[in-house]
Amino acid sequence: MQQWNSRQRQTPGTILVVGTVGFDDIETPFGSVRGVLGGSASYFAAAASLYAPVRLVAVVGSDMPSDTLDFLRERGVDLRGLQVAEGKTFRWGGRYGYDLNSRDTLFTELGVYEGFRPVTHPEYAESEFVFLANIHPALQQEVLGQVRRPRLTMMDSMNLWIETARDALTDTMRRVDMVCLNDSEAREFAGTSSLLTAARRILALGPKVVLIKKGECGAVMVTDDEYFVAPAYPLEEARDPTGAGDSFAGGFLGYLAQHDGDITPDVLKRAVIHGSAVASFTVEEFSLDRLRRLTRAEVERRYWEFTRLTYFDDVVRD
Amino acid sequence: MQQWNSRQRQTPGTILVVGTVGFDDIETPFGSVRGVLGGSASYFAAAASLYAPVRLVAVVGSDMPSDTLDFLRERGVDLRGLQVAEGKTFRWGGRYGYDLNSRDTLFTELGVYEGFRPVTHPEYAESEFVFLANIHPALQQEVLGQVRRPRLTMMDSMNLWIETARDALTDTMRRVDMVCLNDSEAREFAGTSSLLTAARRILALGPKVVLIKKGECGAVMVTDDEYFVAPAYPLEEARDPTGAGDSFAGGFLGYLAQHDGDITPDVLKRAVIHGSAVASFTVEEFSLDRLRRLTRAEVERRYWEFTRLTYFDDVVRD
Repeated sequence: MQQWNSRQRQTPGTILVVGTVGFDDIETPFGSVRGVLGGSASYFAAAASLYAPVRLVAVVGSDMPSDTLDFLRERGVDLRGLQVAEGKTFRWGGRYGYDLNSRDTLFTELGVYEGFRPVTHPEYAESEFVFLANIHPALQQEVLGQVRRPRLTMMDSMNLWIETARDALTDTMRRVDMVCLNDSEAREFAGTSSLLTAARRILALGPKVVLIKKGECGAVMVTDDEYFVAPAYPLEEARDPTGAGDSFAGGFLGYLAQHDGDITPDVLKRAVIHGSAVASFTVEEFSLDRLRRLTRAEVERRYWEFTRLTYFDDVVRD
Repeated sequence: MQQWNSRQRQTPGTILVVGTVGFDDIETPFGSVRGVLGGSASYFAAAASLYAPVRLVAVVGSDMPSDTLDFLRERGVDLRGLQVAEGKTFRWGGRYGYDLNSRDTLFTELGVYEGFRPVTHPEYAESEFVFLANIHPALQQEVLGQVRRPRLTMMDSMNLWIETARDALTDTMRRVDMVCLNDSEAREFAGTSSLLTAARRILALGPKVVLIKKGECGAVMVTDDEYFVAPAYPLEEARDPTGAGDSFAGGFLGYLAQHDGDITPDVLKRAVIHGSAVASFTVEEFSLDRLRRLTRAEVERRYWEFTRLTYFDDVVRD
């Protein structure tokens, strides 16, 4: 990460994402939908493609209509890494509580993800940015091994892997530049109730940046030198938090890819705000409905609204 | 509140607080204590007295050692409104969960608060600032009626009164300038999962400012024109959240009392940060242990640290 400042690029870096593409059944206090598009890679790609070229590695079943991801194609997402396998597409069902902060998983049907081996397209090996969305940490490492010289790698995970594949998960953490988890996952992984302590324990494994997602409380970024808090954008109506975390990661990494040549601490903080801004649109509607028609200009406007949410006095600089 | 800008004062305004003074039994993952000083008025007064003169209205039983509140006296807190009644001092017991965000009340023994009538000292009628800490809303109104011409009034409450004295609580809200609640209370009172909507419903009753306390997520201030988010200060070791909300209110209102003549939107935001700063010290140790020796200079240093927690870009001003 030291050499980040030494280059200037004119074009955004290319982002490789591996994760799930599937169908969701979602119940929130504001309605329920069945069989809608979901999956970590879908949300991430829809968000990140507002900023930079995205390559997607995932698998869908033969039951997914071939035009389902056309809106991603239209945004320039490279889908040559999307496998179509005989069988059923991944399905997930979840139900959210009254304040949308609690979620119960109702079912997870792996379908074609059972036995999935992520084999990326040969060209993908030259990707500059890599996002390992929430899949088995061993698969995350397989993908890492297929990218020749990434400039920046980031991973997400979930409680399932903390509980069932902790060693592999820790290995993946040791190999990436950035770790992105939600607050309960960070606490569980690090075995502490303090998020700051949890972040520092993860930093001690090697990553330079830890991002902790806190739902309606926003997100926190911790590095060796900085602790940065991004609020969540205040919404009168948040309808469906599904994918908020992955679109947060997409806005964050997308912004970094766009500013590839100059990733300073301030750029990192602005990237967190971009992630928060994109995520705030995601939760306004079910599934990827809002993300589908979201524009970079809308995100930019919301970014500037964020400056007013937390400003109270001029910052003391070192 | 319109006339706030029209005056300039050289000395801080005087703050009247009514609330509880009692003994707490507290269990957190980091230890437990029994019979320690607690109560909303104690925490508030300890915090606010760092900024401005404080007058305290409460009742304690004959079992409370007479030197218990000496540290408040030494800070100039006027205790002439503290009644000593035959009987037992108020006692509360609570247990906190792993991440300190959840709390179970184990017992509440009203003791001398059973039948308490807050009769303030005659001189208190001229208090400029009033904080109605968490007591029955009818008692809050009694105190309001005893202050002649307050410049600014603020109230707190709790789920018990929302559920058992909703009409009286709503009446109190209609009569104060500022309402301070935690997030679950705001949601419960307003019957909505959106904190923004909840705040707006309370503003519609008359108050000009709604403060929503969110524990380790900080606090939010909502007015007709502004939405301001204050993070919680990152701590490696938060030991006991008891009193965090009341000391937040004390830092907030104390700062306003100190800036009595010039309560602009920016001063309000800085007051929220002062509240957050004081609260962050409170939770570092059990009971009022940290507050007892806290200095205004320490709070000021932490205030400036807060500027760095959320800064990412220059604010767009109107």
